Amino acid sequence: MRFSLKPQDDAFYGFFSDAAENLKRGVAVLAELGDDKPDFQSISERLVDVEHDNDELTHSLFNKINTSFVTPMDRSDMYMLAGRLDDVIDNIEAAANLIYLYGLSDLPSLPREMIEQVAVLEAQAALTAEAMPNLKGLDDKMREYWVECNRLENDGDRAYRMLLVRLYSGEYDTMTVMKLKEVADMLESACDAFEHVANVIEAIYVKES
Amino acid sequence: MRFSLKPQDDAFYGFFSDAAENLKRGVAVLAELGDDKPDFQSISERLVDVEHDNDELTHSLFNKINTSFVTPMDRSDMYMLAGRLDDVIDNIEAAANLIYLYGLSDLPSLPREMIEQVAVLEAQAALTAEAMPNLKGLDDKMREYWVECNRLENDGDRAYRMLLVRLYSGEYDTMTVMKLKEVADMLESACDAFEHVANVIEAIYVKES
Amino acid sequence: MRFSLKPQDDAFYGFFSDAAENLKRGVAVLAELGDDKPDFQSISERLVDVEHDNDELTHSLFNKINTSFVTPMDRSDMYMLAGRLDDVIDNIEAAANLIYLYGLSDLPSLPREMIEQVAVLEAQAALTAEAMPNLKGLDDKMREYWVECNRLENDGDRAYRMLLVRLYSGEYDTMTVMKLKEVADMLESACDAFEHVANVIEAIYVKES
Repeated sequence: MRFSLKPQDDAFYGFFSDAAENLKRGVAVLAELGDDKPDFQSISERLVDVEHDNDELTHSLFNKINTSFVTPMDRSDMYMLAGRLDDVIDNIEAAANLIYLYGLSDLPSLPREMIEQVAVLEAQAALTAEAMPNLKGLDDKMREYWVECNRLENDGDRAYRMLLVRLYSGEYDTMTVMKLKEVADMLESACDAFEHVANVIEAIYVKES
Repeated sequence: MRFSLKPQDDAFYGFFSDAAENLKRGVAVLAELGDDKPDFQSISERLVDVEHDNDELTHSLFNKINTSFVTPMDRSDMYMLAGRLDDVIDNIEAAANLIYLYGLSDLPSLPREMIEQVAVLEAQAALTAEAMPNLKGLDDKMREYWVECNRLENDGDRAYRMLLVRLYSGEYDTMTVMKLKEVADMLESACDAFEHVANVIEAIYVKES
Repeated sequence: MRFSLKPQDDAFYGFFSDAAENLKRGVAVLAELGDDKPDFQSISERLVDVEHDNDELTHSLFNKINTSFVTPMDRSDMYMLAGRLDDVIDNIEAAANLIYLYGLSDLPSLPREMIEQVAVLEAQAALTAEAMPNLKGLDDKMREYWVECNRLENDGDRAYRMLLVRLYSGEYDTMTVMKLKEVADMLESACDAFEHVANVIEAIYVKES
């Protein structure tokens, strides 16, 4: 049941646009890892703030869902979509926190392929923030979003595999390899989580078409 | 469609209470890892028993689902909830089995942060066992359960990250680090799985509200 | 709503049989890893082809879903099932690619337990390809499929755990351990993904029964 012309609905759709913008802000903070002398502690702390902002957005969405008689999408679909956006933030925050906790700031620089992983996340965040306002229409524009989203996820996979090859090449000592691997895994999970966001939207589209 | 006053329904709800109690029993066995001289083999073997008990509970639930004309919750929701409870058991059993297979019993003691992970799992198991009998009403009491569940999952994350920092600090030899990391990952997955249990219950609540 | 006697439906069911056959073909390529002198590069490249074939099958299924007025199963269930089959291929392709990229071909042979993981995947692929044509009926034959699927997943777990024990036994140097562990994890994920295929089919069955 859809009443998509009712102003009420805009609050629901608006949530997902706001959450995607907040996520874009978070990935921009993460991208400072590629700067000349990154402030690792500040990056980690600001990402905790971005995570809290997302928690508050989610909390008000759930309140709205629970006090609304009709909703423009299935309650469980909105619930799922918010969850997948939350997965992205969780992984990004964890990656930045571990870089700081592990003292990886002592390295001359993070491996180039890890910065490439972050660049893919930036592109995914921009794409997602751009697509989210079209959630209301779910028209053919979304198809381009899925295609591009899939392409970026492949880019992320490639960067991740090349990073693994470098990590195991003997360039770093064992403990550093393990620390970098842990961070790489979380960035890869964030990359996958962006694709899961697209999958949920695609599943909603399939159901409603 | 809900007929929650029919005695028939109690069998369905009863399953989830029984499964949560069985899980609590399993985590109590796991918690012996914090004892002075744990019997690693016995812990591992008794957790296999707990896993089998859960399998039998699940099997009888599925039989009941398939032979009942009406069920108090969606069949697929009950199916999903049983699956998430099973994930907790699987991870706990695997963690205890690997500790035994890896011969980690040769360490003077397991790292303090790993015992903290287990303490979080104990709190999660107690919370889940306490909440499950309220599944029938799904009233506002559940809200406290979700809040507390979320808090405990954060505690678990913190213990896990601090454990990683210790593992990569140079205190242990490389192979021991890898073994402990593998066990830590499984305990962290069990901790996440408890949150997934709460998520499924929340999704049911959102759908029915 | 089911019109299972309409020829139209056979196209939907046919997709899943074709995808399962393609998967079986992929696992047969992977199984060449157990040969005397495997051609690691060729195995990796042919698995990319198998992955592309699966992508094309999926693409035509989604087109069919979106242009059909009635479908024999829920659109979202078909969507989910295709996704889980895709997970198997993804993990297998990644495992073979990393073996090649890591230069693990320099080892005298891959660990026996890793070949056992692949043997379990072969049995799972054969079982899935055999079960898929029964998707249309979803009768009691499926029950045997789930039981056997569960048994094989346990075999896979056992091979994986024994492989971990060997990896951490001191037989290999640290970097080789890490590389083999990465591959083992992907094979284990493929094994889990086969069980997720069975879970989705079971969930469809529970819903329709």
